[in-house]
Amino acid sequence: MKRLKNPFYNRDIVSIKDFQRPDLDYLFHVANEIKTSLPNDSLKNKSIGLMFLEPSTRTRLSFESAMNSLGGKSISFGNLSDSSTQKGENLSDSLLTMDQYVDAIILRHASEGVSRYASEICKNPIINAGSGSEEHPTQAMLDVYTILNECGKVDNLNIAIFGDLKYGRTVYSLLYALSNYKPNIYLVSPKPLQLRSDPLIELKNTLNISVHENLQDIISDLDVIYTTRIQKERFPDLQEYERVKGSYKIDNNLLTNAKENLVLLHPMPRSDEIPGEIDNTPYAKYFNQVSAGKLIRSTLLHLIFTENPSF
Amino acid sequence: MKRLKNPFYNRDIVSIKDFQRPDLDYLFHVANEIKTSLPNDSLKNKSIGLMFLEPSTRTRLSFESAMNSLGGKSISFGNLSDSSTQKGENLSDSLLTMDQYVDAIILRHASEGVSRYASEICKNPIINAGSGSEEHPTQAMLDVYTILNECGKVDNLNIAIFGDLKYGRTVYSLLYALSNYKPNIYLVSPKPLQLRSDPLIELKNTLNISVHENLQDIISDLDVIYTTRIQKERFPDLQEYERVKGSYKIDNNLLTNAKENLVLLHPMPRSDEIPGEIDNTPYAKYFNQVSAGKLIRSTLLHLIFTENPSF
Amino acid sequence: MKRLKNPFYNRDIVSIKDFQRPDLDYLFHVANEIKTSLPNDSLKNKSIGLMFLEPSTRTRLSFESAMNSLGGKSISFGNLSDSSTQKGENLSDSLLTMDQYVDAIILRHASEGVSRYASEICKNPIINAGSGSEEHPTQAMLDVYTILNECGKVDNLNIAIFGDLKYGRTVYSLLYALSNYKPNIYLVSPKPLQLRSDPLIELKNTLNISVHENLQDIISDLDVIYTTRIQKERFPDLQEYERVKGSYKIDNNLLTNAKENLVLLHPMPRSDEIPGEIDNTPYAKYFNQVSAGKLIRSTLLHLIFTENPSF
Repeated sequence: MKRLKNPFYNRDIVSIKDFQRPDLDYLFHVANEIKTSLPNDSLKNKSIGLMFLEPSTRTRLSFESAMNSLGGKSISFGNLSDSSTQKGENLSDSLLTMDQYVDAIILRHASEGVSRYASEICKNPIINAGSGSEEHPTQAMLDVYTILNECGKVDNLNIAIFGDLKYGRTVYSLLYALSNYKPNIYLVSPKPLQLRSDPLIELKNTLNISVHENLQDIISDLDVIYTTRIQKERFPDLQEYERVKGSYKIDNNLLTNAKENLVLLHPMPRSDEIPGEIDNTPYAKYFNQVSAGKLIRSTLLHLIFTENPSF
Repeated sequence: MKRLKNPFYNRDIVSIKDFQRPDLDYLFHVANEIKTSLPNDSLKNKSIGLMFLEPSTRTRLSFESAMNSLGGKSISFGNLSDSSTQKGENLSDSLLTMDQYVDAIILRHASEGVSRYASEICKNPIINAGSGSEEHPTQAMLDVYTILNECGKVDNLNIAIFGDLKYGRTVYSLLYALSNYKPNIYLVSPKPLQLRSDPLIELKNTLNISVHENLQDIISDLDVIYTTRIQKERFPDLQEYERVKGSYKIDNNLLTNAKENLVLLHPMPRSDEIPGEIDNTPYAKYFNQVSAGKLIRSTLLHLIFTENPSF
Repeated sequence: MKRLKNPFYNRDIVSIKDFQRPDLDYLFHVANEIKTSLPNDSLKNKSIGLMFLEPSTRTRLSFESAMNSLGGKSISFGNLSDSSTQKGENLSDSLLTMDQYVDAIILRHASEGVSRYASEICKNPIINAGSGSEEHPTQAMLDVYTILNECGKVDNLNIAIFGDLKYGRTVYSLLYALSNYKPNIYLVSPKPLQLRSDPLIELKNTLNISVHENLQDIISDLDVIYTTRIQKERFPDLQEYERVKGSYKIDNNLLTNAKENLVLLHPMPRSDEIPGEIDNTPYAKYFNQVSAGKLIRSTLLHLIFTENPSF
């Protein structure tokens, strides 16, 4: 087989839009190969800097444990109260400082565009671990990888994206990732939480998209439901939050009409939208996503630091 | 010598009650053997997840440094303000997430039973690093190990447990650990802080226990005094706390009548119950406990991950 | 070449005053040698404990990444809210505990003298990472190293120390470090922020010092300007802070009259005293300091733990 050039070597991972189908194919191929070799020592002399300027559990821990599984090291910028941000340091200086100490920076920030800006001022690769309400590229990669793993394909699948489509950054990144394939997309949300119109128009150029207000009408068609948490901290108006939370939920009653092989995904954390009782159904695959998160991030880190991987 | 089966291999460490004398003998034997080999690389490819959902210094740091001394790695769930708990994630999801990233979880939590619950839902071993006001099994192991090291035996020793016997979880775990031996136990505390009656009744089945209100009357009999901090955060009523704190204290006056080889222990942190001036007496062995904490936890981690240790 | 005895082996780094010119020469010589060997595995079995009881970014991260670059490990005492300090533990017990778990302690504390005290009670080396408003020895070492690197020498240079000279601990440590050389020192600050008089008198014994209120008058003489942040948290009186902040600033207008090879330094973090536009001038060398911070701390750690370094 002709070996492809590694498209991730020494590369910033800022937006999922920077990557196309061949890049994703390459990533997932290496992920399947590298899986059995972990843990290994391939990044023994490399280190990453974790700069999570918004709360995170899964993303931070999975990057840290991914780096551990490759023999590399992590240092953490720390929480806001312990670091120089308290002394009024601007983000740019913090980034340039971290850039001197590590070989790549993992950055989460509340604002759009911060990750792109960081990639422009830093000499080392920047990996966007979530910025604003639009970008979470590594989450999109692991989401598509999980769908491929669970369903064997993405093309022609009926995929519902369900919940908060307005403020959930994983939704936008996933949709742009899916636009490299040919699935049928069902957007399901309460009206005030529908996908923002500009990305919707753009995505409709490449994706077959229909818009719905509830799952009941379409449940029997679906191969995948990707549910998102209604994120309190993304709401400009808390009253709006209180009104819609809890009205959207996956329950056993709904699942009565589901396909036998329906795959339930969720980027986590969840609130009440998928109750614990669903965890014991064969549909529940969201903890497989958690596991895929470590694998995909291990693979990405390996590829960013290794020009010619042996996998 | 016939080699015993490793009773800790792939095992949850939830309650000291799950372990009997032969298990403790095995642990302490390996601890004595492994001591001279540290640091080593035996857990090079293993990692633990630190989930301390209550404040901790010694326990967290000793597990982390124990793992370092075995060549393994730790990742930390982080403090509450930085992680997904702030987004309303339930503990069960947090545990199942960590369970995907590491090979064992070290868990501290304010509630009884959380550690047992975690061991039931997670695939990897759970080590209880303190739960509620009843269980701190690894502390009990290191406490007994220290007594054995300092006194050469536990049987027939006169051991006072002094201070807050009602809310101190180290007290309960230690007493259950000691019930594998034949010491004479003197419980010494102000009335409102006496040992809770149910465990007292249960422990009296296996231990020779007497109850006292002060140390003065019995000081000349004692081989060991295990003092505990009066823990503000364990008191339902702060006025009760203010009334009793400080009334119980080890001082040089008290020690005038002590045996020459009296051993003073304390699980730390301490408040005023053992003033700094006592540190320079030959009785003070509580920093040996700190050191034993790293050794015993190193040994436990080694045994949990190594079916047939070479020690 | 005759090999010198390593003056840092197993040594506390408490005050810059404890080190003389030959010690600094030795350190900088090894730093230049070790630079190309990093990362290496020389401290594979060593660990340090980070006890930052005041906020820090650069110092903490550079020690941690220095230790990583030497194959060693770090554990962190954690922030105040998560550790036993919340339970009322005194610093002495915290230090003695950490002393049992690691091979050296990196300590930052708000009070003068704490680092010396720590070195007296702990068995392992203490490295002062900033104490009170007087001592930050490793910062002084990296500052002098940067001047040597940028200017080729220190002797006979005209060096301005600019900004908050009263409360900035890096200022005092740097001046004492420079007193091993023969530079001309220009102290430039608003009157209420002038160097404290006792150290000024002492430093004048060894250094050629003049005192100024603005840079304009002397800018054309200067080879180095070392600017410091006006540190809000060091002011006893916030009104005094509001009055002077922002009145002292490096700008392009000022630099019109600067020497071609002027070197601008800053220990960072900065506020408004060096605006971002200056970063693109050839004078800006403060990010070289950040980089030197990792190198000098790597070298120091290597020397503290390695009696006979091969460099």
